[in-house]
Amino acid sequence: MPLWHVYHPPGAYSPVQKKQLADDITEFYARIGLPRFYVMALFHEVEASSFYVGGEPAQNAVRIVIEHIARHATDPAARRRTREALAALVAPHTTERGLYCEFHIDETAQDLWMMDGIAPPPARSEAEQRWARENRPVPY
Amino acid sequence: MPLWHVYHPPGAYSPVQKKQLADDITEFYARIGLPRFYVMALFHEVEASSFYVGGEPAQNAVRIVIEHIARHATDPAARRRTREALAALVAPHTTERGLYCEFHIDETAQDLWMMDGIAPPPARSEAEQRWARENRPVPY
Amino acid sequence: MPLWHVYHPPGAYSPVQKKQLADDITEFYARIGLPRFYVMALFHEVEASSFYVGGEPAQNAVRIVIEHIARHATDPAARRRTREALAALVAPHTTERGLYCEFHIDETAQDLWMMDGIAPPPARSEAEQRWARENRPVPY
Repeated sequence: MPLWHVYHPPGAYSPVQKKQLADDITEFYARIGLPRFYVMALFHEVEASSFYVGGEPAQNAVRIVIEHIARHATDPAARRRTREALAALVAPHTTERGLYCEFHIDETAQDLWMMDGIAPPPARSEAEQRWARENRPVPY
Repeated sequence: MPLWHVYHPPGAYSPVQKKQLADDITEFYARIGLPRFYVMALFHEVEASSFYVGGEPAQNAVRIVIEHIARHATDPAARRRTREALAALVAPHTTERGLYCEFHIDETAQDLWMMDGIAPPPARSEAEQRWARENRPVPY
Repeated sequence: MPLWHVYHPPGAYSPVQKKQLADDITEFYARIGLPRFYVMALFHEVEASSFYVGGEPAQNAVRIVIEHIARHATDPAARRRTREALAALVAPHTTERGLYCEFHIDETAQDLWMMDGIAPPPARSEAEQRWARENRPVPY
């Protein structure tokens, strides 16, 4: 967590542009204290003949699916801040480049989640801070 | 929302057949008032050596994953109607063509969802109707 | 259900190794009484330039997304047993082969799920046992 799936037209992103988006995503979550290695971003090229928006083949659309596990926004204000912050994050990589962009966040249970056989430590715990410092899962 | 992922064997669908399924999906949601551009259908070709059903490589199976965000069926009767209507929708594209078909619907939160930086309007609001008429997200 | 998506580097798994993992997954659920054909495992090759962990291209990471529909673990002890059993299942296919592995389980609603137009029978019902014996969906 977070896991980002980015479905995009062929050629929409060069390797450098993918890394830039992945970096921006990683920075966002690192700022709120998550270990950097928690952040996975997978890019999936989908041809227009396999990507329909409103029944029409799409050549300019990006669909992002985000899985949040380690942190769930609770009150409506926090949820609003989350969605607006992520919209601001993706805008330079999508809308501002002429790519229509839709995303949604799915929130799944923290206790059904494992990394190299270890259940990640509780949010904001000492152990999580150590994972962030060492940037890898360590027994705790 | 809705987002449909269709995982299918290579060659199971021609571009025309994909568009027909995408059209049927779009009509279904447009009939209940959703803007057509809300409907995204992504097709993913998966070879038999990467697609296992009960441990066996599958050449005739279609797995559909559906994300519902804008509308969630509430009472059991409505949920039954939803699953049966979608089963009827996919049957001509799958079972009736000799393709085994499993689907499930995941429902995720409406307030963690954005389109081109705008949070979609409430269900059945004036703004949603305008989005449906203009078939694009407009500030409201 | 269960549906497993395995995102992995090119070449990480041969067809034989994919089938072995799919077999292990299938055995796990068959042991708790699920029909074998419920178990779908899809493998998705993702190149390093499309697979970022902490902003870095990954050549040794496997990300598994698991959808549970037919059975949901309820109490904390059962959830712990589930995650630990699945971690043990995947270890020989990932960590023990030098592949970093993260997985999470998403649980979705049983009543929004269909197979060949039939809503699967209730957990542990006579009908489910018959589906398991015949290894296919039959009207009930």
